[in-house]
Amino acid sequence: MRVLIIHGPNLALLGTREPEVYGSTTLEEINAALAALAAELGIEIDCFQSDHEGEIVETIGRARREFDAIVINPAAYTHTSVAIGDAVRACALPTVEVHLSNVMAREGFRHTSHVAPAAVGVVSGFGLDSYLLGLRAAVGHVKAANA
Amino acid sequence: MRVLIIHGPNLALLGTREPEVYGSTTLEEINAALAALAAELGIEIDCFQSDHEGEIVETIGRARREFDAIVINPAAYTHTSVAIGDAVRACALPTVEVHLSNVMAREGFRHTSHVAPAAVGVVSGFGLDSYLLGLRAAVGHVKAANA
Amino acid sequence: MRVLIIHGPNLALLGTREPEVYGSTTLEEINAALAALAAELGIEIDCFQSDHEGEIVETIGRARREFDAIVINPAAYTHTSVAIGDAVRACALPTVEVHLSNVMAREGFRHTSHVAPAAVGVVSGFGLDSYLLGLRAAVGHVKAANA
Amino acid sequence: MRVLIIHGPNLALLGTREPEVYGSTTLEEINAALAALAAELGIEIDCFQSDHEGEIVETIGRARREFDAIVINPAAYTHTSVAIGDAVRACALPTVEVHLSNVMAREGFRHTSHVAPAAVGVVSGFGLDSYLLGLRAAVGHVKAANA
Amino acid sequence: MRVLIIHGPNLALLGTREPEVYGSTTLEEINAALAALAAELGIEIDCFQSDHEGEIVETIGRARREFDAIVINPAAYTHTSVAIGDAVRACALPTVEVHLSNVMAREGFRHTSHVAPAAVGVVSGFGLDSYLLGLRAAVGHVKAANA
Amino acid sequence: MRVLIIHGPNLALLGTREPEVYGSTTLEEINAALAALAAELGIEIDCFQSDHEGEIVETIGRARREFDAIVINPAAYTHTSVAIGDAVRACALPTVEVHLSNVMAREGFRHTSHVAPAAVGVVSGFGLDSYLLGLRAAVGHVKAANA
Amino acid sequence: MRVLIIHGPNLALLGTREPEVYGSTTLEEINAALAALAAELGIEIDCFQSDHEGEIVETIGRARREFDAIVINPAAYTHTSVAIGDAVRACALPTVEVHLSNVMAREGFRHTSHVAPAAVGVVSGFGLDSYLLGLRAAVGHVKAANA
Amino acid sequence: MRVLIIHGPNLALLGTREPEVYGSTTLEEINAALAALAAELGIEIDCFQSDHEGEIVETIGRARREFDAIVINPAAYTHTSVAIGDAVRACALPTVEVHLSNVMAREGFRHTSHVAPAAVGVVSGFGLDSYLLGLRAAVGHVKAANA
Amino acid sequence: MRVLIIHGPNLALLGTREPEVYGSTTLEEINAALAALAAELGIEIDCFQSDHEGEIVETIGRARREFDAIVINPAAYTHTSVAIGDAVRACALPTVEVHLSNVMAREGFRHTSHVAPAAVGVVSGFGLDSYLLGLRAAVGHVKAANA
Amino acid sequence: MRVLIIHGPNLALLGTREPEVYGSTTLEEINAALAALAAELGIEIDCFQSDHEGEIVETIGRARREFDAIVINPAAYTHTSVAIGDAVRACALPTVEVHLSNVMAREGFRHTSHVAPAAVGVVSGFGLDSYLLGLRAAVGHVKAANA
Amino acid sequence: MRVLIIHGPNLALLGTREPEVYGSTTLEEINAALAALAAELGIEIDCFQSDHEGEIVETIGRARREFDAIVINPAAYTHTSVAIGDAVRACALPTVEVHLSNVMAREGFRHTSHVAPAAVGVVSGFGLDSYLLGLRAAVGHVKAANA
Amino acid sequence: MRVLIIHGPNLALLGTREPEVYGSTTLEEINAALAALAAELGIEIDCFQSDHEGEIVETIGRARREFDAIVINPAAYTHTSVAIGDAVRACALPTVEVHLSNVMAREGFRHTSHVAPAAVGVVSGFGLDSYLLGLRAAVGHVKAANA
Repeated sequence: MRVLIIHGPNLALLGTREPEVYGSTTLEEINAALAALAAELGIEIDCFQSDHEGEIVETIGRARREFDAIVINPAAYTHTSVAIGDAVRACALPTVEVHLSNVMAREGFRHTSHVAPAAVGVVSGFGLDSYLLGLRAAVGHVKAANA
Repeated sequence: MRVLIIHGPNLALLGTREPEVYGSTTLEEINAALAALAAELGIEIDCFQSDHEGEIVETIGRARREFDAIVINPAAYTHTSVAIGDAVRACALPTVEVHLSNVMAREGFRHTSHVAPAAVGVVSGFGLDSYLLGLRAAVGHVKAANA
Repeated sequence: MRVLIIHGPNLALLGTREPEVYGSTTLEEINAALAALAAELGIEIDCFQSDHEGEIVETIGRARREFDAIVINPAAYTHTSVAIGDAVRACALPTVEVHLSNVMAREGFRHTSHVAPAAVGVVSGFGLDSYLLGLRAAVGHVKAANA
Repeated sequence: MRVLIIHGPNLALLGTREPEVYGSTTLEEINAALAALAAELGIEIDCFQSDHEGEIVETIGRARREFDAIVINPAAYTHTSVAIGDAVRACALPTVEVHLSNVMAREGFRHTSHVAPAAVGVVSGFGLDSYLLGLRAAVGHVKAANA
Repeated sequence: MRVLIIHGPNLALLGTREPEVYGSTTLEEINAALAALAAELGIEIDCFQSDHEGEIVETIGRARREFDAIVINPAAYTHTSVAIGDAVRACALPTVEVHLSNVMAREGFRHTSHVAPAAVGVVSGFGLDSYLLGLRAAVGHVKAANA
Repeated sequence: MRVLIIHGPNLALLGTREPEVYGSTTLEEINAALAALAAELGIEIDCFQSDHEGEIVETIGRARREFDAIVINPAAYTHTSVAIGDAVRACALPTVEVHLSNVMAREGFRHTSHVAPAAVGVVSGFGLDSYLLGLRAAVGHVKAANA
Repeated sequence: MRVLIIHGPNLALLGTREPEVYGSTTLEEINAALAALAAELGIEIDCFQSDHEGEIVETIGRARREFDAIVINPAAYTHTSVAIGDAVRACALPTVEVHLSNVMAREGFRHTSHVAPAAVGVVSGFGLDSYLLGLRAAVGHVKAANA
Repeated sequence: MRVLIIHGPNLALLGTREPEVYGSTTLEEINAALAALAAELGIEIDCFQSDHEGEIVETIGRARREFDAIVINPAAYTHTSVAIGDAVRACALPTVEVHLSNVMAREGFRHTSHVAPAAVGVVSGFGLDSYLLGLRAAVGHVKAANA
Repeated sequence: MRVLIIHGPNLALLGTREPEVYGSTTLEEINAALAALAAELGIEIDCFQSDHEGEIVETIGRARREFDAIVINPAAYTHTSVAIGDAVRACALPTVEVHLSNVMAREGFRHTSHVAPAAVGVVSGFGLDSYLLGLRAAVGHVKAANA
Repeated sequence: MRVLIIHGPNLALLGTREPEVYGSTTLEEINAALAALAAELGIEIDCFQSDHEGEIVETIGRARREFDAIVINPAAYTHTSVAIGDAVRACALPTVEVHLSNVMAREGFRHTSHVAPAAVGVVSGFGLDSYLLGLRAAVGHVKAANA
Repeated sequence: MRVLIIHGPNLALLGTREPEVYGSTTLEEINAALAALAAELGIEIDCFQSDHEGEIVETIGRARREFDAIVINPAAYTHTSVAIGDAVRACALPTVEVHLSNVMAREGFRHTSHVAPAAVGVVSGFGLDSYLLGLRAAVGHVKAANA
Repeated sequence: MRVLIIHGPNLALLGTREPEVYGSTTLEEINAALAALAAELGIEIDCFQSDHEGEIVETIGRARREFDAIVINPAAYTHTSVAIGDAVRACALPTVEVHLSNVMAREGFRHTSHVAPAAVGVVSGFGLDSYLLGLRAAVGHVKAANA
């Protein structure tokens, strides 16, 4: 099983960016923790970060041939990108949306998601653990669907 | 570590209730799976179901003395109960909100939560796995806070 | 055929409560009139009143095993209880929503119903007759479905 | 006692029109069932269908001299016609609004009524039975008012 | 100078219709008063009443050839008829909107007008006098435009 | 009979202020035309202009002892002053709201009035004639009320 | 193949009506152009204009027996007529909505359509060409469905 | 004179619950202070706390026979419970709504009250003093009504 | 301790102004009752009434040097004056908002306050007693803050 | 005459992407059909697809020097991209917006367009034919403008 | 060149008023800094502060004869005063709106301006520098217009 | 001191793009004027233009290491890009938002900014001068912060 991990805009800055909101973990540490969990779960992952909505759309569009599921943190594009939501619908891979922070406890414009209605489910608020739980959720979903 | 599991209204009917939305797993099976995971994680859990908003408020109010965290599926009360949200704030225990279905993909009135702004985070859309992931999230949060 | 009649909050006060809105008929008189109509129609009814949202949810949840249909006046919970709407969906019995007053001619917050979208239909505005017409509607619906 | 039955726009097509929403009963069958019930109740009815908002307004305006009550299915005009609501207020006859389908379970624009606030009450969701129950409601209302 | 007077839906019932809102003056009395004022002002008028949105649209459409101005009480169509507003724009005659009652002091849905933005101005709230003042306004407007 | 004429904010600039919206008539010319009409109608008027909401409130408050009616162009305060609306209610004199321009054909924030719900009626869109028609309306209203 | 062309309210005035919005083409010229295109495409058309919502509803209701598709410019009724939308649903003929002007570039109340959700598609903004393109679209749709 | 004091959900936790919002006074101290004031005013009080909306509704429903007035802090139910508002209307006792915190200075969803429109008045923002002032207000109201 | 009492617009008319809403007590009687209570509480008060938003803003601005607290009935300015709310924030004196009527039971535009979010708390609905309770609240607040 | 064809995000996946919504035609087939029609009409076209909002903006920005018109399917960017709308305004070429699906019959967030107000017109709902009709519309528009 | 500087309500308190929002600069220091910049730019300024909406309206109304431009900080009136916006339109002088704080980063009700649509532009968020930049902007605008 | 100047989408077209809105100044002229002012102020600037939201996000993300402040005209992305707002928060450099046109005087969708709440302040409406004033504001802000 192969899972594509997508990190959205501004996430390359993690660790230095508003640590009171996003914590001090860096993106490299998140990717390393995901790799460790992937090894434990016996699956492969591929990590991708982009600040470009279009690159994320393209990456999702190409994912169908190579991956079994997607774990995506759409970050700011969560709230504004119909295109990423449509890409998830178009590629038809099971997709898990994750957020480092608890978006429902922040500004009102962060309470909506154009991606979630196209996703299997959402994990938010647990920092690095949101990714790890999201990866477990994706793997569990694929296994159940293939069972 | 002790974690209180709260199941909200209509969840006693799980397995027979709208299986196309909520799946065929029963509440007993969810509780058994949670107990198995708790054993694996070396913690204790206590499971409670109620159709009464007031009982849920009371149970949360009493939880502070006996538990280290709460995992709650507020079900329909998610969207209407300021009282449960206030109870979570009042008891001040780290709380994880979980949902069997992906609420953001359903009717508009299910897109708001009075509990989530008072919670650590949310897991939704993965059926039984939402609870298991939510328990992992709660345990991880308490361990990190105590570290 | 057995039909469960549910009276929501504040209805125990009928007859003394705001008679210019709700009329002077008491709940006992409504139940007696329903019993008389049930006898005429050759069915059984069971009447239940509660001011507790949770009790109404529980009662609907248990109804599937014993009843063929529900006639419910959710009163104030009509406009605020997602839980009762979900209970109606969960129990899957044909349900008729009734109101003594014409809710569409009253305050704006009474123009919405969380129960009606899960119901077969609605009868409102005819005082005691709303219940009698609602019972006829429920019986007719069950007979047609069984025909 | 004489009751005017008014069928609004598109109802002449009943039986062939979207049967999954409106059922397979024709307008003639509805009128026949109403006539049978009228005979049973010892009253007279007059049935009128029009696709024209203006004709419905005129018909209601003239009704006061000849009828004791109105049963109206305003169909699509329910949601857009202030003029029919005003006509009901102007003629001052007790009026019952009926709908074949459960409008509260359909598109949002069908959840409002310009007629209901001027009516005695509403019956919706029971197909042909909505008319029969509505006629019973109207007759009951007139008898009670005259009692 | 010739002015077309248009009375909208339900106005044929004036005098008997909700006299606490609309007064006891009949439509004939309004037309007579308008005729008297027209004579005083040395102009001709033509009075037309219809409950049909379409007839009002047609009448406005034909008015350009025969009239210099329009005084219209669109009644309930004020709030719902884009078609009448478009007809006023299409015929391009100076048009005065009048109302017997003070619509801004009534229900919220009467506070909007699809006709007023296409009109020269509005007179509302003065009963029969609204028409007389509206006719004076129309005549004054035409004279000033021709001056 | 004595009628108080109130001109609201920015009206002292009439004639030079945005003539394409408000015309080239000055406030003095409006007052002169009103005086001429008052003489013709055999009544007295008193004209008052203020840019101060508080002065307008005070002037209305004192008007009850000396006037039989008010004609007011609240200008910009129409849309923002609950205090002037309350003053009209408090003084209980019949009040006519007038506007030079057709406010319903301008920006959306000019479509609401805090004064109109407390007034007898409204005349808008006819320039200087709005005042003259408003004065006629006020005089007619007082005469009818005293008849 | 037979296609019914329906022109809604105020369209009889085309050519003289607000030419800066609707152009100088007359309805006769549109019908002639449509007839020419129909001949080119080897189909029959029937053109109908009405200012009456009810007549349009009736005409659509009767169309099923005689036509294979409808091209309709509902004009002002686009934005206010649930009845025409329901008629399109009821007759179940493939229907193309056309507009002379680009309605999305005009007032906000022209941005909604009660007809479009029941239609195959929409063509707007190209003047006379909107009709010709709409006829091509309807013919293409019927041919594809019959293929 | 007897006054019923009702404390809504989560108030049993006072003193430990979010002291920066609700202060450090406990519910027992509030009740003691109320008892002292009652003694000073020469009246009797009865204090009741519940986390259950239904119990509060029932308690209000039974209050008419035993009490002259109600002082209620509906807490979170203020903003969500139509049933408590209806209970206040049904029991018809003069009712004073009180809040420890200044709800108008908190989250937007706390700015609405379903109870206040049925109450005599509201006191909010003064901590324990809100109850004492509310009791004085209730007693003053009853005395004035009986004067 | 010195407390400034501010009466907003239209309050000079109390006693004659809409007595069914505001009662028959005059402003002088309110001031006398406040003076009596002040004497009882051993404090000084200064009473000020203005119909001018600007004077109220200025008076609050100068109050810091001479007063310990403010009791203000902003009347109509409650709902429209950001300036008075900002003045309360700027002067930083503890401020109590009072209303004679229960504003939450009146028109929707009276349900918002620009002053309350800057105040300590609100008392509304008790007529003259609202002022007396408000003064007690202000004095209690200052004493507690100084304790 | 040269026309630029722009395909927005996710359209490269056509044929495999949600065929129940978008059909089974591929982007290559659309381009081929457009080329065939261009040949028939005696014009040149250039086809461009991008998932990047920025590339679409740039491409439109450069188009003025090389093209006479644009046919664009902005897909998901229709509803979120002010930048593409501004680009169309900036380049000032006549632009036709096309959609494969009938966007007005889909989710509410697809009912708005930031591009349409800057376009000549819109064609939606006809699958591949939307492009062909859109190209005809663009060519017709340019020819008429040059005539 | 002469520029009128207008300071709105509560600005006389600057320096002591909420220094965490507005800084510790006093109004005198702002005026002194403006005077110094005016000298540097070779223009004259006149500074005016008022807490009265009406005085600001009057001052703007009289400004046309004596000034070439206006720099105004409308403070709280920014969000509530249609009258000041209309005064700016009426006087027709180029006007620059300035704010000490970044209003778009504060409460939602501060995000709208009734003055800005009538102004040349806006400078906000830079404390004292907002005024200096605003004065430069006004002078630059006048010079460019006169060039 | 080094300041990064960012020009958003469509700004490369300046000078030819809608000159009635944006003026005839080109981007090169703006950059030259900025360079001249930078020289005068003794600072360095770096100018960057992109039509890509993602490039702007990346550029802001990298800016922290090399710049002391940012002056950004986000153009159309102002109103749609949460990602750019988040990038400004993440890089934590003082940022000034500038606009050539007075956005508050244009379409409603241009009245909101996702960038302004994260910025120090905003300058809009002065054409090229908006940039120069914005640069002065940024430099002044940095100097004050370092003082």
